[in-house]
Amino acid sequence: MTGKLYGLGLGPGDPELITLKAHRILTSAPVIAYPAPDTGPSFARQIAGPFLRADQLEVPMIVPMRVERFPAQDIYDAAAVTLSHHLDVGSDVAVLCEGDPFFYGSFMYLFARLAGRYETEVVPGVSSMMAAAAAYGRPLAARNDVLTVLPGPLDDEALSARIAAADAVAIIKLGRHFSRIRALIASLGLTSAAGYVERVSLSNQRVLPLNAVAEDVAPYFSMILIYKGQEGWAHASHSSQSAAQI
Amino acid sequence: MTGKLYGLGLGPGDPELITLKAHRILTSAPVIAYPAPDTGPSFARQIAGPFLRADQLEVPMIVPMRVERFPAQDIYDAAAVTLSHHLDVGSDVAVLCEGDPFFYGSFMYLFARLAGRYETEVVPGVSSMMAAAAAYGRPLAARNDVLTVLPGPLDDEALSARIAAADAVAIIKLGRHFSRIRALIASLGLTSAAGYVERVSLSNQRVLPLNAVAEDVAPYFSMILIYKGQEGWAHASHSSQSAAQI
Repeated sequence: MTGKLYGLGLGPGDPELITLKAHRILTSAPVIAYPAPDTGPSFARQIAGPFLRADQLEVPMIVPMRVERFPAQDIYDAAAVTLSHHLDVGSDVAVLCEGDPFFYGSFMYLFARLAGRYETEVVPGVSSMMAAAAAYGRPLAARNDVLTVLPGPLDDEALSARIAAADAVAIIKLGRHFSRIRALIASLGLTSAAGYVERVSLSNQRVLPLNAVAEDVAPYFSMILIYKGQEGWAHASHSSQSAAQI
Repeated sequence: MTGKLYGLGLGPGDPELITLKAHRILTSAPVIAYPAPDTGPSFARQIAGPFLRADQLEVPMIVPMRVERFPAQDIYDAAAVTLSHHLDVGSDVAVLCEGDPFFYGSFMYLFARLAGRYETEVVPGVSSMMAAAAAYGRPLAARNDVLTVLPGPLDDEALSARIAAADAVAIIKLGRHFSRIRALIASLGLTSAAGYVERVSLSNQRVLPLNAVAEDVAPYFSMILIYKGQEGWAHASHSSQSAAQI
């Protein structure tokens, strides 16, 4: 009997936003794998940290950090070989994933290599997008809203067209694109509808209107939310909610 | 001291997909409120059921089911009055929400009425959209994909334009629109890229390619996922994953 492969969504950062199911698998799988940058600690490992035990085998998968975070496929080829050794001898392997494994996550690269050969289960997690809307105190989308998720590296033309065609927008992967995107949102007259959330659910979380952000570069774990919808939504309640949560 | 209001995201249906945080609040709040249709049991109450105790006060909020599920605002006016009685005497109130509270959820109506007057916290949950992608065994979105969420009641023209402008699409609120939308997807030549997921994470979950759905109407808790992305993604692994999970 070969082992079972899990892609475990761990949520946006607060270990309490792990699901009961991910917690059960996290605390029972003999092999725990996770992506780790070559420059510092693994964020996924940090989220799971409070629940890991010394008798579990940890397998860091070192992923060199590059500009758009699309690492070379040979990293995942090698990681798949490593994990298959454990699966072949019957050990279940849990791969830790920040947020949700299939929402812009890197687990898909391992899934594509291993799911055809081993029993595989993806355990969904709380996405940072939902957590950001909760922290900002404003719906992500409601009723018949069109919601579009846009990666920051897209060019202005692509971003503008999709922002215009949506009622609600989440812009992710801001990084060095932040300043350009903030200017674009201003040119579209949407700054007052835009909120900024950084490191959501962590102790150093920042939640503020976009026009209150002083910096020109945003960290990788940040997001802009735009909500054009009005109906049924009282903006008056926003300030007190923000104040209560920060 | 007044009580604290919680909007508790409970995830897509499997009680094990509740977060540790929602579980803690769910098992400690003295007052548990939830929307309930006038035609049957409350889905949110069902998800939380295994964890509720007899000494917690349950407050069902009866929401008449209408076509597009946008109930009259007077229902929420009345519910806000009821909940404020409990908050005023210092009781914390947890409002149970299917999925995530701010992802097309009805909690926003209570939030708009109460968050300005009481300390309020929205606890994000696993969305049925992430759970559907996990069950279907295909990424929801990756790399620099544009992901758009479309409510089924939108007309063909609105849907077509947004499907064309996205790399990945989730179509929600299918219901009586299912047959029309399936025909639209066929006319766009995207049937082979489309999956169908019904009652995700529940024991009667159904996961199948769109072209294998025999029915012409879909239940409220169903979704179509379209993924046009190819790069780095091996379609060959899909069939075995589906088989392993169903």
